[in-house]
Amino acid sequence: MAEEKKSFRIFPVGTVRKQGDEISIEIDEEYADALRGLEGFSHLILLSWFHESDDPGKRATLQVHPRGNPENPLTGVFATRSPVRPNPVAVSVCRILAVQGRTIRIDHTDAIDGTPVIDIKPYIPISDAHGEAVVPDWVKK
Amino acid sequence: MAEEKKSFRIFPVGTVRKQGDEISIEIDEEYADALRGLEGFSHLILLSWFHESDDPGKRATLQVHPRGNPENPLTGVFATRSPVRPNPVAVSVCRILAVQGRTIRIDHTDAIDGTPVIDIKPYIPISDAHGEAVVPDWVKK
Repeated sequence: MAEEKKSFRIFPVGTVRKQGDEISIEIDEEYADALRGLEGFSHLILLSWFHESDDPGKRATLQVHPRGNPENPLTGVFATRSPVRPNPVAVSVCRILAVQGRTIRIDHTDAIDGTPVIDIKPYIPISDAHGEAVVPDWVKK
Repeated sequence: MAEEKKSFRIFPVGTVRKQGDEISIEIDEEYADALRGLEGFSHLILLSWFHESDDPGKRATLQVHPRGNPENPLTGVFATRSPVRPNPVAVSVCRILAVQGRTIRIDHTDAIDGTPVIDIKPYIPISDAHGEAVVPDWVKK
């Protein structure tokens, strides 16, 4: 009998909302207390779930042409930010415009309206900002 | 009858290894192909699972005194990097020293030996580096 594969459970804690030019993260009521003090930071790290890539075929895809461009070299998904990956977690840095109740207004995110949010972290430049980091040529195009 | 809470599944893809001064990420064999091209980047974003905080009590804790210091203001976990949070996902930026087969040697990580790895992403400074980001006083202590 096949052993079930080991896994961990992620619970959505909120949702990305995009309405016109207004972009926000709406945290579920039961997690609202976890926002206390977030307004002291200028930026946050948004962890969201690429829910449209949460299927067995996409999660088994290990190499892609980045940005869907066949001219980009075939690349392992751990070397891309593709939504297609074993665990479809998105990481993006957002500027905090305002924290109003359980709504965080942000400047932008690639996530679409309705994307499940799985975590919010404060951005701490001493450990998170590496302006000197090097990337391959395909990233610069 | 209580409806079961909606959740997503995360599969571990590797393990953090610390042996003396050697720190590395060992990717499981079935995911090794996902590393192709990672050597073109100088830094990566490591997503790991705070497995020691994956229990219902810790996952229900929404506010903490950061760094376990009662002098730090009571803060929502979404405004801290505490391992205690609804979804115990860790995010850290690491310098890549070498990619050797399915082992990535890195400069440092707070994660302990044996920590499950859930994703690796390339660090892209144009979107990830915000040296100007502002933090509250307790972070600077």
